[in-house]
Amino acid sequence: MSLDSLFEPDNVAIIGASREGGKVGHSILRNFMEEDFGGEIYPVNPEADSILGLRSYESVLDIPGEVDLGVVTVPPTAANSVIEEAVEKGVNNLIVITSGYGEIGGEGVEREEELEDILEGSDTRLVGPNCLGVYDSFSGVDTLFLPSYKLKRPPEGDIAIVTQSGAFGSAVMDLLADMEVGISRFVSYGNQADVTETELLEWLDQDDETEAIAVYMEGVSDGEKFLEKARKVTEDKPIVALKGGKYGSGREAVSSHTGSLAGSYEVYRGVFSQARILEADNIEQLFDYSRALAYNKPLDGRNIAVVTNGGGFGVLTADALEEQGLKLAEYSTSTEEQLREAVPDYGNVENPLDLVGDADSKRYERSLEVLEKDPNIDGIIVIPLLQPLPLESDVIDAIVNFNEGYTEPLVVCMTGGEYTGVHAKNLEKNEVAAYSSPKRAVDAMEALYRYGDWRS
Amino acid sequence: MSLDSLFEPDNVAIIGASREGGKVGHSILRNFMEEDFGGEIYPVNPEADSILGLRSYESVLDIPGEVDLGVVTVPPTAANSVIEEAVEKGVNNLIVITSGYGEIGGEGVEREEELEDILEGSDTRLVGPNCLGVYDSFSGVDTLFLPSYKLKRPPEGDIAIVTQSGAFGSAVMDLLADMEVGISRFVSYGNQADVTETELLEWLDQDDETEAIAVYMEGVSDGEKFLEKARKVTEDKPIVALKGGKYGSGREAVSSHTGSLAGSYEVYRGVFSQARILEADNIEQLFDYSRALAYNKPLDGRNIAVVTNGGGFGVLTADALEEQGLKLAEYSTSTEEQLREAVPDYGNVENPLDLVGDADSKRYERSLEVLEKDPNIDGIIVIPLLQPLPLESDVIDAIVNFNEGYTEPLVVCMTGGEYTGVHAKNLEKNEVAAYSSPKRAVDAMEALYRYGDWRS
Repeated sequence: MSLDSLFEPDNVAIIGASREGGKVGHSILRNFMEEDFGGEIYPVNPEADSILGLRSYESVLDIPGEVDLGVVTVPPTAANSVIEEAVEKGVNNLIVITSGYGEIGGEGVEREEELEDILEGSDTRLVGPNCLGVYDSFSGVDTLFLPSYKLKRPPEGDIAIVTQSGAFGSAVMDLLADMEVGISRFVSYGNQADVTETELLEWLDQDDETEAIAVYMEGVSDGEKFLEKARKVTEDKPIVALKGGKYGSGREAVSSHTGSLAGSYEVYRGVFSQARILEADNIEQLFDYSRALAYNKPLDGRNIAVVTNGGGFGVLTADALEEQGLKLAEYSTSTEEQLREAVPDYGNVENPLDLVGDADSKRYERSLEVLEKDPNIDGIIVIPLLQPLPLESDVIDAIVNFNEGYTEPLVVCMTGGEYTGVHAKNLEKNEVAAYSSPKRAVDAMEALYRYGDWRS
Repeated sequence: MSLDSLFEPDNVAIIGASREGGKVGHSILRNFMEEDFGGEIYPVNPEADSILGLRSYESVLDIPGEVDLGVVTVPPTAANSVIEEAVEKGVNNLIVITSGYGEIGGEGVEREEELEDILEGSDTRLVGPNCLGVYDSFSGVDTLFLPSYKLKRPPEGDIAIVTQSGAFGSAVMDLLADMEVGISRFVSYGNQADVTETELLEWLDQDDETEAIAVYMEGVSDGEKFLEKARKVTEDKPIVALKGGKYGSGREAVSSHTGSLAGSYEVYRGVFSQARILEADNIEQLFDYSRALAYNKPLDGRNIAVVTNGGGFGVLTADALEEQGLKLAEYSTSTEEQLREAVPDYGNVENPLDLVGDADSKRYERSLEVLEKDPNIDGIIVIPLLQPLPLESDVIDAIVNFNEGYTEPLVVCMTGGEYTGVHAKNLEKNEVAAYSSPKRAVDAMEALYRYGDWRS
């Protein structure tokens, strides 16, 4: 049976729905009621007749008709028996939030084996246990049991997130929401007793809403299968992966965390490279890469134009390009001549193009129009520093408008505080990736180049 | 003559003060009037009798008594003649904001040579030209001519900033203000026609308000002198440096930016290492290092304890420690026994210490108290993820209180959005460095170890 009902179910049963505020089974029920989830919602709780005004069922078996998605939030000692009922009912997909399985060792391992026995031969496909489950910005599925003031939900967008660690997932969702980065689907898959990260990647491959996939993984279910399938995914869509548990000490921490074996990092690196998965070194890079890849086509070449009103930032960007094996594009003679007209005498029409501290948005606009026509340029890094007085908010409109017609990759670097942050969010909403430093912008460009190079 | 009047003048002359809002000479005059600058303020403008209610002077020569600090904001064609008058007047220190000197080549180079001739043999010491000048959070000196909504001013604090690039300076000041990172003194020194970066470092060495110095430099005035003096500074205080113009392409950009020769990066690396200057790879790292060094003594050893309520973050921290040559501390038997009492059965009393998703601030408090007593631990990374419901704001108080009595280095990692950001700022106000990812927290710890290792 497919995984469609994980993301786009017609109805959902909250197994373990609770009247008590603060309980997981209460929060998730509320999420479905408050998000724009369009389908039926069935609370399941043997001790309540109704919860939050909805009729409650004693067992999932009592729900009339088919159940697309079941979300299990009962304590570990009760979880397997309600899962058994859901399997009997023929529920398409289950998300098991409950922890206390393989990750705690001892009795948990037995519980997980029992769970696997229950699923054996059934059509029900299960995500978890020991996970946060699914957030889908389009359908309104939201099993994240944390309140929105602690964990803001990102807007609709192009990036899918697949994470083994729930804590990782909740922290980055909150981070991305604050940055206004749009997310298509989010899955925290925990112990992967049934549905594997590989199957989730395959589903996302055929998902029209997803342009790039960000993965946090500690262990992999089946290395060979992962390699084979992931390689197919990356023919269409980029995957960026952050690996947790690379070395001895980190691997030990993994085994007590999600109960999986982390395996040798060397093997992982080989798999990532063969599958054309871009490996991220850290959390920032995971989403720095993903954003660039989701909003741009890959880079066709190494020649980058840099435009800024802050000379020092041009210098730092030139350094970072060199360190990343990219190049400052050499402008054609006609480009230089035209830039001479767009930039005052005391500016610098070399690359990096220094529009100088008194630049306004018009100067950016004119320069970008000149650069657009130069075939020697494979992509542009724009660095509009908003601290100088003459550069106003309309430079954001100028960049967004230009980018809509521009066919090559373009990323932005903006360093500053709250005022700059507001403008960075505006870029992000318009699918222009904004980075807080030259190094991060250049790293993102390098990912666009590497992915393009792999695919061609 | 000393540089004291740059930072703590008894009075200031704004040479080129203007009535016209938006003009540099207007903004700077306003800054001094609005900040809590305690001394006399003398506007100098031959075309006005009074500006903003203050008596205006035709020339600096007309000001009665001694002038401590002169700030020059007139156009380049008029700058050298007013500087000549200031030298004649015997002004202690001058800050020349005016650009159009060596950095533009041609006539600018001649102008800068003329400026050097004017200063020859005089006691007046000059910062600039082509700079933003000085911001001093204690004295109220503020020559940053950009409005505070575009460039917020950081609060009083321990970190000094010395930057060759004004754009770099203004962007990072705005960034740090937003993070609530405290700054003691800020100097953007531009073309260093007179006062060099080396002299500024020497002044900051004897400055009681400064605990760590962050430097952005493109070229150096005198390499040998810099090495000799900086090495002395780092015996007392850490210096973190970001070098702009490392390679061919970046170096070319430098020469059209601050007009200085960038020199070979290999030579710089050698000088940094001999002078025990910590080199930062990028803007983030410059202040990640500086904050850790300003708030902590150096690390005595490599053994780090990690405490978190998010397992995945413990895993990522363990990986980053290994990559940076640091180690997960091995707890003593008694530590493990005591942690067993502080942490529930399903938690993990290994290192990283996983307090699990239902941890509250008490669990953090009790664990930190146990770790404090273990002599095998050289420093602690605390990772309180605020997304889970049971962990409330009081974990910040718990960490700050603990840190006040703790004698070894401690840094925090918190990943998340706006809610997390508010709490990170609270830590920063209390001089606890907070980082947005495990990698950045570990990199900061590595800087504390490297600096400690150099000094011992």
